[in-house]
Amino acid sequence: MRVATLGSHSSLQILHGLKMEGLETAVITEKSRESFYRQFGFIDHVLSYQEPDQAVDLLNSAGDVIVPHGSLIEHIGLAKASKLKDKSIFGTRNLFQWESNQKRKMNLLRSAKIKVPKEFESPDDVDRRVIVKLPGAKGGKGYFLAEGKEEVRKGLERLRSIGLIKDEKEVLIQEYIVGVPMYFQFFRSVIRNRVEITGMDIRYESNVDGLRRLGKVDGVNPTFVVVGNIPVVARESLLPEIMNYAESFTTVVDQIVGPRMIGPFCLETVVTDEMEIVSFEFSGRIVAGTNLYVYGSPYSWLYWNEPMSVGRRIGRELKEAQERGKLQEVLT
Amino acid sequence: MRVATLGSHSSLQILHGLKMEGLETAVITEKSRESFYRQFGFIDHVLSYQEPDQAVDLLNSAGDVIVPHGSLIEHIGLAKASKLKDKSIFGTRNLFQWESNQKRKMNLLRSAKIKVPKEFESPDDVDRRVIVKLPGAKGGKGYFLAEGKEEVRKGLERLRSIGLIKDEKEVLIQEYIVGVPMYFQFFRSVIRNRVEITGMDIRYESNVDGLRRLGKVDGVNPTFVVVGNIPVVARESLLPEIMNYAESFTTVVDQIVGPRMIGPFCLETVVTDEMEIVSFEFSGRIVAGTNLYVYGSPYSWLYWNEPMSVGRRIGRELKEAQERGKLQEVLT
Amino acid sequence: MRVATLGSHSSLQILHGLKMEGLETAVITEKSRESFYRQFGFIDHVLSYQEPDQAVDLLNSAGDVIVPHGSLIEHIGLAKASKLKDKSIFGTRNLFQWESNQKRKMNLLRSAKIKVPKEFESPDDVDRRVIVKLPGAKGGKGYFLAEGKEEVRKGLERLRSIGLIKDEKEVLIQEYIVGVPMYFQFFRSVIRNRVEITGMDIRYESNVDGLRRLGKVDGVNPTFVVVGNIPVVARESLLPEIMNYAESFTTVVDQIVGPRMIGPFCLETVVTDEMEIVSFEFSGRIVAGTNLYVYGSPYSWLYWNEPMSVGRRIGRELKEAQERGKLQEVLT
Repeated sequence: MRVATLGSHSSLQILHGLKMEGLETAVITEKSRESFYRQFGFIDHVLSYQEPDQAVDLLNSAGDVIVPHGSLIEHIGLAKASKLKDKSIFGTRNLFQWESNQKRKMNLLRSAKIKVPKEFESPDDVDRRVIVKLPGAKGGKGYFLAEGKEEVRKGLERLRSIGLIKDEKEVLIQEYIVGVPMYFQFFRSVIRNRVEITGMDIRYESNVDGLRRLGKVDGVNPTFVVVGNIPVVARESLLPEIMNYAESFTTVVDQIVGPRMIGPFCLETVVTDEMEIVSFEFSGRIVAGTNLYVYGSPYSWLYWNEPMSVGRRIGRELKEAQERGKLQEVLT
Repeated sequence: MRVATLGSHSSLQILHGLKMEGLETAVITEKSRESFYRQFGFIDHVLSYQEPDQAVDLLNSAGDVIVPHGSLIEHIGLAKASKLKDKSIFGTRNLFQWESNQKRKMNLLRSAKIKVPKEFESPDDVDRRVIVKLPGAKGGKGYFLAEGKEEVRKGLERLRSIGLIKDEKEVLIQEYIVGVPMYFQFFRSVIRNRVEITGMDIRYESNVDGLRRLGKVDGVNPTFVVVGNIPVVARESLLPEIMNYAESFTTVVDQIVGPRMIGPFCLETVVTDEMEIVSFEFSGRIVAGTNLYVYGSPYSWLYWNEPMSVGRRIGRELKEAQERGKLQEVLT
Repeated sequence: MRVATLGSHSSLQILHGLKMEGLETAVITEKSRESFYRQFGFIDHVLSYQEPDQAVDLLNSAGDVIVPHGSLIEHIGLAKASKLKDKSIFGTRNLFQWESNQKRKMNLLRSAKIKVPKEFESPDDVDRRVIVKLPGAKGGKGYFLAEGKEEVRKGLERLRSIGLIKDEKEVLIQEYIVGVPMYFQFFRSVIRNRVEITGMDIRYESNVDGLRRLGKVDGVNPTFVVVGNIPVVARESLLPEIMNYAESFTTVVDQIVGPRMIGPFCLETVVTDEMEIVSFEFSGRIVAGTNLYVYGSPYSWLYWNEPMSVGRRIGRELKEAQERGKLQEVLT
């Protein structure tokens, strides 16, 4: 079985883990990064493209199985991603559509009875502190905080003027929950019929995580571009609740999105000082925060007596699926 | 030997580590969390209770040895904890009494000649920036900062009005040391007659660690509820001093508290920009920050050529004690 | 081969790693820390001095090879470091001179075509937000931020008045790049002819990383004394660029400093919200942030199927050099 992914996001971890499971690996990358990926011995094939258009064809020819991640959709686009050959994706292909629409995403969380922040249809409805988010997984680019409707309107005007949005309908206006961000990573194993906590992280965001050092700075607005991830563990008493969330989420994906939730996902949350866990987003595939745990996380060690990154966990699932003649159940 | 603990705080790490040492494990948990704990293969027995009252009986019947942690006392209460059967606790039972009284705790640190913040008996004495702390290990709930006596009085009034305290004598008013928090974790091995640094962490606190992103927010006060832990290592030149603190602490517990300091403890400190280490609290048992190091910490690897969590370290100490006929020396 | 280092900074990691590679280890330490270092089984020889003057003689007699780190130069001084016997240092001895002069350091980065902040010769030239840095690797002591020339002048006056500097020509006045700090650690292997990413960290600085909890506090200025390190991973799409920086850096050291870049180094950077990586400093030897990765980092696991700290990596390079008769190529 040859497995391919796009050279970005979490591809090093994925390919490293797949190789630990004995699979053949391929990376598809833009020409300028080819030499970077060639230095790693666990990548069997480095295939490069000059034009982004060629990425889909390369993916289709390079791998029996493709592992998607956040950059895959962003780089090649939703329409083109749908051209990846049938039964080639390890994961839930249908979720791509849901992930491209933040309002639909939030509704899916609501269906799973997961606590979510209040949402505002229009700037006029805003009656509290909110965060305004742009469509797509752009690493937080353009996100801004606002204290009421007037600040929302001004912020949207600014985004329009610099061309980041065309229409205010594109954005998601969410209540800003006061608490701390915490990103819970899971793996839904179809083969073992269980959900595992694979790790947790905090995003490291430019410039907001640098600004704190200066206090309020005149003329500099906080921005939320994710440039890295920091490891964290959660208070153990939060775990049973977040596991309930995760299991409920997979049930809802099985039922509403279909055919089933496959492999890694993440619940992006804020934990309040009342110990409430409020999810403001999900990712229906591997997140970059798992890159922290190439040799396993404090949670993966509870399930496995061997180093188990999420990349390797994907490889393990593929292998176990194949051994049991169930490969079709983890591919879409 | 069957070892039991309460399902919370650091129980996953403890039970996982005990099992790595070949011990039989049991968790006592409230009914609603039973299914959560059942998913982990390293827990031999999951015993659940409907009423908190039943926890002590279950602990007494489930284990030859009980490993206490921060939630154990908080959940079952100090009076009931004293009903745990004699010579069943791995750790220093007498410290429970000291830990329940913050002023007594600080005096113990002073006896060990560890630098501590100035303490104020009454709001009237306050002449600087202070932090006001509530009794018990409540994860920082209700803690507040104040700039002088007037703010202390107002804060206490608020805590009384919402029922968090009855009397201002309950709280600890401590000088707020400007610097960075750093939590140093240790293990006192009675069997090997040494103190080991097992790790370090920074607490991740809601909402204060989220608020930094907004700067000062009108109408939102910082709160200090610990919801997670972040790994950290210390400048190596801090280690000889903190080791002196730790050894001095064990000596003082041996002499004043008795019969001896057994197993894990933590010195909660602030490190100033003059590289002074000031301890504002201690924990006389395992802390949740050790959950970061299920596969060992940057410090445990210096002592052991194998993955050594604090949970496993407890198991190792129990095994070595038993092999040498010294089990009674590590149980109280 | 007996390898020695000074007892501070990253010596535990270095000596632990060397011992894993089967080398004989020695630590040179001031008398008061002798008992601290004696507790670790991987240190074969603990040699202590009463007077700092004796450190160089002890280093010369204790080891065939000396591993330098940030504290070595700071403790024994640049002039005395040059008295370490010829061909005894694992690393690029000539870089000591460059590292002692921050302006020269920045010029070396510029030669490697690495993006750097704008620099100001005199307070009078300052036209933006800057950070003012003191000479030497003093852990950030005395560093301050200023918004324009007037604040720079006041800050320098304060440093003079407390004796931290004599002359304003000593300091480096750098544009303050808004973004987040990220420290990229590398290892240049002469033997394997490649550059490896060995890890990343964020510095944990007193008091600035504590102050964020209070917001702006009257009368307390932020200070930047490094007291610890926190692990982080970077967005994968940053890696090809930072690898280019690292390779370009080694080429420039080979050519300009000579004889060649040997072993560990670090590019200290700020990553902006436009994903620009701006380097404001480098370290031409092991940095303390590598202490996080005594059992390997998320990056070292991509190169090695075994735990590989930077300390161990040094040991591996020494061994491989010796086996191939190339020891002289990694010593200066």
